Amino acid sequence: MKALRFEHQQLQVNDVPPPAMVGEAIVRVTLSGICNTDLEIARGYAGFEGTLGHEFVGVIESMPEGRSSTTLGVAPSLTVGFLKPGTRVVGEINAGCGDCDLCRSGDSRHCANRTVLGIVGRDGAHAEFLKLPLVNLFPVPDEVADTHAVFVEPLAAACGILERTSITSDSEVAVIGDGKLGLLCAQVIATTGARLTLFGKHESKLQIARRRGIETLPVDKARSRHRAFDVVVEASGSPSGFDLALDLLRPRGVLVLKSTFHGATGMNAARIVVDEISVVGSRCGRFAPALNLLKQRKIEVENLISEEFSLADGVRAMARAAESGVMKVLLRP
Amino acid sequence: MKALRFEHQQLQVNDVPPPAMVGEAIVRVTLSGICNTDLEIARGYAGFEGTLGHEFVGVIESMPEGRSSTTLGVAPSLTVGFLKPGTRVVGEINAGCGDCDLCRSGDSRHCANRTVLGIVGRDGAHAEFLKLPLVNLFPVPDEVADTHAVFVEPLAAACGILERTSITSDSEVAVIGDGKLGLLCAQVIATTGARLTLFGKHESKLQIARRRGIETLPVDKARSRHRAFDVVVEASGSPSGFDLALDLLRPRGVLVLKSTFHGATGMNAARIVVDEISVVGSRCGRFAPALNLLKQRKIEVENLISEEFSLADGVRAMARAAESGVMKVLLRP
Repeated sequence: MKALRFEHQQLQVNDVPPPAMVGEAIVRVTLSGICNTDLEIARGYAGFEGTLGHEFVGVIESMPEGRSSTTLGVAPSLTVGFLKPGTRVVGEINAGCGDCDLCRSGDSRHCANRTVLGIVGRDGAHAEFLKLPLVNLFPVPDEVADTHAVFVEPLAAACGILERTSITSDSEVAVIGDGKLGLLCAQVIATTGARLTLFGKHESKLQIARRRGIETLPVDKARSRHRAFDVVVEASGSPSGFDLALDLLRPRGVLVLKSTFHGATGMNAARIVVDEISVVGSRCGRFAPALNLLKQRKIEVENLISEEFSLADGVRAMARAAESGVMKVLLRP
Repeated sequence: MKALRFEHQQLQVNDVPPPAMVGEAIVRVTLSGICNTDLEIARGYAGFEGTLGHEFVGVIESMPEGRSSTTLGVAPSLTVGFLKPGTRVVGEINAGCGDCDLCRSGDSRHCANRTVLGIVGRDGAHAEFLKLPLVNLFPVPDEVADTHAVFVEPLAAACGILERTSITSDSEVAVIGDGKLGLLCAQVIATTGARLTLFGKHESKLQIARRRGIETLPVDKARSRHRAFDVVVEASGSPSGFDLALDLLRPRGVLVLKSTFHGATGMNAARIVVDEISVVGSRCGRFAPALNLLKQRKIEVENLISEEFSLADGVRAMARAAESGVMKVLLRP
């Protein structure tokens, strides 16, 4: 099968054997999305080698025979009953050991021995087939098109913010970054009824948010809102976003770090102490709430798609995704 | 009066006019303590000029005439009734504007227009007299000696940790740093019944904690406890303490930053995101719980005193306080 792989510091679409079914489900990928993490890996920053990609929608090709989710040693997914060959699915990307306390509690996102689809020790989704434990898979409701379902993973990550800090209709919240991640975060936070402002540098992208009723402000106008926010979500991935976040926060405010910065970031730690800020890391979210939001059409993703490439053109697609101003680039096997 | 002042980048004991009483109380200082913040200011890092010092115990010399705490525009201190000339007092160091929402709620610690004793826009405690708003003053119980009461400010800062993160008898907690701040933090956390380990580099200081029944470990043995802690308190003031804290924390753990680092600190932000760590700044605490702990003899401070100098010898005292391994240095006017 074809797969977009990063090996020996080289990015190539290779012909590789399809994944073998050993206690896991095989999924035929319908569509996959290129994430900034893929770009970071292809720059050699992340130490991963193999097939890239962790955002996908697909169809179950085959199920592990004679295995239920319980004999896999992990908490049964509520949806497992609905899974069979042919089911359209998306998949949570952390595959736990199944044995530790975290996995037994049904949340393998922080299992110390986990593999992560296309990121840590497990071939990813930019391929014709992938494999994942059955418990990771969620059926996609009929109402949700493939081009929407492919956004479940980053949308779940945006929903993960609400697991990490309390946001209510009384909260004054800022999101920094008008890229696809920032636009998803802003839309998720808007569902809470919080007073929300999205800060960004690109008028055309800010417009997408405004069409959803979200207030926006160019970052160069941020001064007027200094020390005004209870929660600031950093989704720009730029170190300057971190400084801006500290400027926007009131004392004892919460800075949610959504972007993964690589290497050491210069942080004004004195300010974190003096203003008693909380800096809260947020990574992967659960898929169920994200699927729900898509089903209810509460999140606009159509406008976040820049372009679709054939998987065979994967290298070109990655180059395109790395261009400034480009939003989500999709790959179709 | 004599005062230990930092002016024009110079540290000197000067003769200056005593503070004038304008709506505030005048306190005759009995004993003051040198804090690392004083040393940072004297290195020119903090931009403060004036009389240093914010840890003190003293006696009310005079009260603002015809003024009650209410006409000062701030919430009345519960203890204000007990204050009169001659009362032995300690004082919270943040003096708010009295007008903003924070001040009206009785907590001026984050008032945007506050002055801070010996740190921001207000002469400090290494002097014969100081002035503070009446609401900042707390009477010292008879059971608490001056040499203990002078620790109320840093002890309150240690108690402040419990305002910023939840610690229970189920929590696995580490404190990094066996200096005076670390030893106070460890003793405060021990009162919660949490499973506690103090990490430090100085056997003689770790011994002080062990005598209080606190488990200790040299930092070079920390590897055995990686990813074992729910909460880690960084009280070493060293950037390496920050990295060690991340190593010790379990996923979704809480790192309490207690030391003020100056300038940008290289933080592994990717790790904060991937492990979903919360980094929580903690600065000043309330005095009431700290006074209570001292009254109940739950905190040992006697062993934290290295030496006492006369205020006239303030410059030499500061040099001594800056020497490696030296604990609290006191000044007596």
